[in-house]
Amino acid sequence: MNDLSVMSAYGRLEARFGRMAVVEEASAMLGWDQAAVMPEGGAPARGDQLATLAGIAHEMLVAPQTAADLDAAAMAPPADPLARRNLELMRRAHRRATVLPASLVEALAREAAACEAAWRGARREADFAAVKVPLARLLGLVREQAAALSGALGLSPYDALIDAYQPGVTSAEIAPVFARYEAFLRENLPAAEARQRRAPAPGTPPFAEAAQEALCRQLAARAGLDFTAARLDRSLHPFCGGTPSDIRITTRYDEGDFASALMGVLHETGHALYEAGLPKDWARQPLGAAAGMAVHESQSLIIELQAARSDAFLAWLGPRLAEAFGQAAADFAPARLAARLQRVERSFIRVEADEMTYPAHVILRFRLEAAMVAGDLAVADLPGAWNEGMRALLGIVPPDDAKGCLQDIHWYAGLFGYFPSYTLGAMAAAQLMRAARRARPEIDPALGQGDFTPLRDWLRANVHGHGARFGFNELLVEATGKTLDPADFEAHLRARYLD
Amino acid sequence: MNDLSVMSAYGRLEARFGRMAVVEEASAMLGWDQAAVMPEGGAPARGDQLATLAGIAHEMLVAPQTAADLDAAAMAPPADPLARRNLELMRRAHRRATVLPASLVEALAREAAACEAAWRGARREADFAAVKVPLARLLGLVREQAAALSGALGLSPYDALIDAYQPGVTSAEIAPVFARYEAFLRENLPAAEARQRRAPAPGTPPFAEAAQEALCRQLAARAGLDFTAARLDRSLHPFCGGTPSDIRITTRYDEGDFASALMGVLHETGHALYEAGLPKDWARQPLGAAAGMAVHESQSLIIELQAARSDAFLAWLGPRLAEAFGQAAADFAPARLAARLQRVERSFIRVEADEMTYPAHVILRFRLEAAMVAGDLAVADLPGAWNEGMRALLGIVPPDDAKGCLQDIHWYAGLFGYFPSYTLGAMAAAQLMRAARRARPEIDPALGQGDFTPLRDWLRANVHGHGARFGFNELLVEATGKTLDPADFEAHLRARYLD
Repeated sequence: MNDLSVMSAYGRLEARFGRMAVVEEASAMLGWDQAAVMPEGGAPARGDQLATLAGIAHEMLVAPQTAADLDAAAMAPPADPLARRNLELMRRAHRRATVLPASLVEALAREAAACEAAWRGARREADFAAVKVPLARLLGLVREQAAALSGALGLSPYDALIDAYQPGVTSAEIAPVFARYEAFLRENLPAAEARQRRAPAPGTPPFAEAAQEALCRQLAARAGLDFTAARLDRSLHPFCGGTPSDIRITTRYDEGDFASALMGVLHETGHALYEAGLPKDWARQPLGAAAGMAVHESQSLIIELQAARSDAFLAWLGPRLAEAFGQAAADFAPARLAARLQRVERSFIRVEADEMTYPAHVILRFRLEAAMVAGDLAVADLPGAWNEGMRALLGIVPPDDAKGCLQDIHWYAGLFGYFPSYTLGAMAAAQLMRAARRARPEIDPALGQGDFTPLRDWLRANVHGHGARFGFNELLVEATGKTLDPADFEAHLRARYLD
Repeated sequence: MNDLSVMSAYGRLEARFGRMAVVEEASAMLGWDQAAVMPEGGAPARGDQLATLAGIAHEMLVAPQTAADLDAAAMAPPADPLARRNLELMRRAHRRATVLPASLVEALAREAAACEAAWRGARREADFAAVKVPLARLLGLVREQAAALSGALGLSPYDALIDAYQPGVTSAEIAPVFARYEAFLRENLPAAEARQRRAPAPGTPPFAEAAQEALCRQLAARAGLDFTAARLDRSLHPFCGGTPSDIRITTRYDEGDFASALMGVLHETGHALYEAGLPKDWARQPLGAAAGMAVHESQSLIIELQAARSDAFLAWLGPRLAEAFGQAAADFAPARLAARLQRVERSFIRVEADEMTYPAHVILRFRLEAAMVAGDLAVADLPGAWNEGMRALLGIVPPDDAKGCLQDIHWYAGLFGYFPSYTLGAMAAAQLMRAARRARPEIDPALGQGDFTPLRDWLRANVHGHGARFGFNELLVEATGKTLDPADFEAHLRARYLD
């Protein structure tokens, strides 16, 4: 029990943000429970619990005393530059939370729930008309939200939405990066498709779930997941949740395909390593949190795409797969593993896309959501614009809207501005990997021995340990010497698919 | 979002207590997670989460507005008698929470943690001296607590402690009930020991864990546990946790003895059925909670001891055990099951005691803790008093304090006043079973078919559905026509062990 009255304004803020973070930790654990183990009967009560805890944390943030302490701390800021950065992050969180009227927050929650429910049916039936009205209503509220945030944050309305997921990145920076990638893809995708190795898929199904799970555990541990402070469980939609000292990753197993769970677990392990490596001295403070969703995605992708799908690692992995599944080593030869794990193919579904075509899916969504938020694209015109965009970017047109604009939950749950983070993260992962390899030449030889240690140590020192000290581009400058440079991602793809 | 300002004072109280209950539900789920699945690294953060949520719920309860609303509601009480009872329960909770100074609450938490830690080592080493000083310090604070509560509640200091676990029962009522049982035991224990059936233990170990677990699930479901709103998992110390719509029971398995997990799960299922059957109309209100720990224990024991260890049920159970473990039906014949599940034997450890000697363990603790709280027994004299009491009650003396006064955590964690609930519950279970059998003669024939439905239906209508509407004795009057009558428990023991 701290005596708040004798503390400095900044000290009181640290105590209050720390308490909010503890409440949010409780919510994170309950969220894991809901997805991984909760019986269905628990759903209504769990909804109440999560809503109440969110309400309690929100009340702490918007309490008049928080504003008063922020004002007082601004007059007498802490001497430590890290504490000043922490104070700045507090101010941002407070500004985002206080600018929206409660009536708008409630309307957004209500309409998002209604739209998401309608979307589930619409996607099942491939019937966009069934969700058109709720999506239009939700978009109207999202545009109100963006306008309100825009004024308070000094950002364009769409940038104010992006800022919620990856602070400090604007659509003006993203647009040319994405345009450049579009050109790269147009020039190189056909060659990549033509040149990639053709081989039968590795191994012969079924791949027993128990063997897959044991393998996932071993590889996650090799990548650096500490199972005295983490669990691996199952859920319909894989995720990384929990708290830095009690990380919960989940996956799902398909006995016909060992690679989806294995790569999925390594992806979530990348997220987990970031959380576990956040600066302990700043635990439960804004500075001790992740730097944003694009940075988070870079950490999952550097483990999954950069490291675990590398030629060096796959050469080591093959014999382990053969042993785990009791099959012949030759069935997991590099060419056959590459046929499954380094394969380029145009397809309709983002979450199933390979690393080369994935950005096209994101670019499409970035452009469409920017237009919707700006009021330049009406909901009624979304399916046509989607199909036109797919034709322009990948040369394919989905057979129906379930494989088109109905595939992702994001917009139908009110989440606009998230999508760019996926591709910014993929590009940052390539850039970080290049810098890491330069600094630690032993990274690839180690991966060839199934050893992630040198890579993980570099990431811990150059990314994880910084927490939210730096913005997206600042962090890249610290770690790689330059802001986001899509050339590194292109070089990675050239090396893997074109050379 | 209710608009609190236009609600009645009582309406505001319902909203506030409802919100507190939701926070307590979150804590209950986190408590299950901690015991059942949490990796060890999560312990410190989990401690913070539970402490913070407890603090938040406590703040809501002791907020000045709660006191103001309680005063206003007292002037304009609700018309519905159930709502008036709910208001009375709110007032009691508020009084208990506000009477203790914060400094005492903090000192109790601190000294209890220190004493519990010292106790773990002391028990391991059978060294009472190692915990004497911390226990004396803790007892001093408990006596302060009891004195403060005593004044506010108009109860004796020890009764004010009992009231926290089973409201409305006093030591003046308990003492003669326990004295009578002591006499009953003196008269009948030797005969029960002499007359009980001798037979080899049922079945042959090992009893595979997977088979035990499947059986536990089947029997819990038969007893009425709805697995769409419940889970069965493992933990070191079995318990029933969670919330009424998401119940979490746990057990542990011993391949050398199938009976401990099986009876343990049925015991926890009894607790679970009570929680699941609480009145939904009063969910998250004090009236919608259990009536106290003695009533709760009566519900676990009526399922485990009264129903599942009955001759009728064991005759049905035998062949199912044989089938589950792939052994001969004759190995689970009634005499052999009775040799394990209806066995009387004096022993040192309460939690391993049979139903006939168990009350002796409780009577000893009741007398000792009453004397300690009254200041009539010094901590230094506890081991001697314990051993003397065991000799007087059961005619045996523990070989060391680990098997004596160090065996239970309760006092060393600051819990005084809990122990009587175990035996009050066992006696109430016998009394309820007798009334249930009279009202529903089909109960025993159904148990003989492995069917708990008639018993469960009676309990739901006569116990579970009342929530906290009645006190302990009032509930017994409603359900059985009389206050606690130890004769029914004696009759049960006579029928099972002496006739």
